[in-house]
Amino acid sequence: MRDGPLCVGFDPHPGTIPACFGGGESATELKRWGHCVLDALSGICTIIKPQVGLFEMRGPEGMEALAHLISRARDMGFIVIADAKRGDVGSTAEGYARAWLEPGAPFESDCLTVNPYMGRDTLAPYLERADRHGKGVAVLARTSNPGAADFQLMESRGRPLVARLVDALQEDAHRLAGERGWSSLMLVVGATAPHEAADIRTLSPATPFLVPGYGAQGGGARDAVAGFAIDASGRKSGGIVNSSRGITTTGEALAAPDWDRFRAAILAAARAAQDDLRQAAGYGPGEN
Amino acid sequence: MRDGPLCVGFDPHPGTIPACFGGGESATELKRWGHCVLDALSGICTIIKPQVGLFEMRGPEGMEALAHLISRARDMGFIVIADAKRGDVGSTAEGYARAWLEPGAPFESDCLTVNPYMGRDTLAPYLERADRHGKGVAVLARTSNPGAADFQLMESRGRPLVARLVDALQEDAHRLAGERGWSSLMLVVGATAPHEAADIRTLSPATPFLVPGYGAQGGGARDAVAGFAIDASGRKSGGIVNSSRGITTTGEALAAPDWDRFRAAILAAARAAQDDLRQAAGYGPGEN
Repeated sequence: MRDGPLCVGFDPHPGTIPACFGGGESATELKRWGHCVLDALSGICTIIKPQVGLFEMRGPEGMEALAHLISRARDMGFIVIADAKRGDVGSTAEGYARAWLEPGAPFESDCLTVNPYMGRDTLAPYLERADRHGKGVAVLARTSNPGAADFQLMESRGRPLVARLVDALQEDAHRLAGERGWSSLMLVVGATAPHEAADIRTLSPATPFLVPGYGAQGGGARDAVAGFAIDASGRKSGGIVNSSRGITTTGEALAAPDWDRFRAAILAAARAAQDDLRQAAGYGPGEN
Repeated sequence: MRDGPLCVGFDPHPGTIPACFGGGESATELKRWGHCVLDALSGICTIIKPQVGLFEMRGPEGMEALAHLISRARDMGFIVIADAKRGDVGSTAEGYARAWLEPGAPFESDCLTVNPYMGRDTLAPYLERADRHGKGVAVLARTSNPGAADFQLMESRGRPLVARLVDALQEDAHRLAGERGWSSLMLVVGATAPHEAADIRTLSPATPFLVPGYGAQGGGARDAVAGFAIDASGRKSGGIVNSSRGITTTGEALAAPDWDRFRAAILAAARAAQDDLRQAAGYGPGEN
């Protein structure tokens, strides 16, 4: 296993499933595509992040394909972050938490992304399962999209809203800190705002960061790890960096004439991204 | 048809589907329950709001039952607001918008609730479909839960964040205003904060309000319509008020020994809620 900060996004945008899978509009085709991506990643990275909206778009069939792929990935030993960005009042949040974080649930994953806008009480059902079942919860903080600043950076008492959000989450973050000091409450902090990521790290020393925006969205490897912490060995740790389009929709992957060539393209792109991130995080060439 | 502000929530919490439907844990039972609720509401109210998380909790089968109920309700002439509170970056928001607001899509509804935390660019794919296909988009503003104040009321330049959010949405609200002056951009504004609702109305004269929190969550009918506008006839209009538990999980409904008695319980509760809201909004007894 070649360890490192890479997390690979499963983002089956329409038109990005190569023709050798039949176009990817049926559940069967989506599953075949997902199986090949999982096979290719095995040994290169340990974490995957399916983008739920792109399965939901395909209706109940797409959700069935997602449930299947999550289950298969976990059976293969991958850690699965369901990127659903759910958020609702307590009684419905309870439903979402049961759907995604309850052992034996149809979409059981290892971690779920959630939206904090509705308030801390709406996060409780997810955090309770993180505590009880060893799951993770990744709370949106500073996202990687151009409009992130609209509300996340609104000034509140001389600070950006996101800083006050992160402050408000510290009690939960500490309560959920595990043996190695990292919390099972994570923060989503985009690679497109490296200085802000470093500021958020200062406010929130124990929360791993889930970093979108590396690669296709414009953030480089150094930007992506800008909010990581320096560990005892001098490496940057305390986060994972997602790449989706940079792995599964490269020119080589899209043009692959058969499954073998597709797997080879995924493997090459994932290895290059993992190496790029390992270098930025200060891993030596042969280290694990 | 007895018109009025009532919207009935379809919130199949575990344990709230009467035994006469078999417990409601299978898709077939959920559908039977939903059919009976729809039959009972016909002639009493025109708008329903399924709570997506409580279907998602039941996995792909639950989502299939939801797709079926949405489609049946629309065929019967109901307006369906899918309460999914989705929110994601542009390319994934596009997926969610296609899932819920695209004509012919598996979950095609008339309106979708969305979360604004990630910024205005993340709302664009929904608003575009509102414009193109005559759909509605209900943006979370001031929610009805106890923790809503955590972030929504954080002070920013002397005002609560939610006021600045509402300001930022005005351009879209005006652009999407229809012939009768109301926008297809709606705001979710809870019945539990009537004074704030009135303030938001001042900031946002053309946006209909979707009001949760009436009944079980503690808001009365007067509170629920506090943010409505006074129309030419002197009535309060410009919003709809959701009731879920107050309609579908009353003691009578839960204890109903058969489908007929269940429908009768739903009908009675919905009529009482519609009358309560009509009175608060200033409808005369026989008016329509």
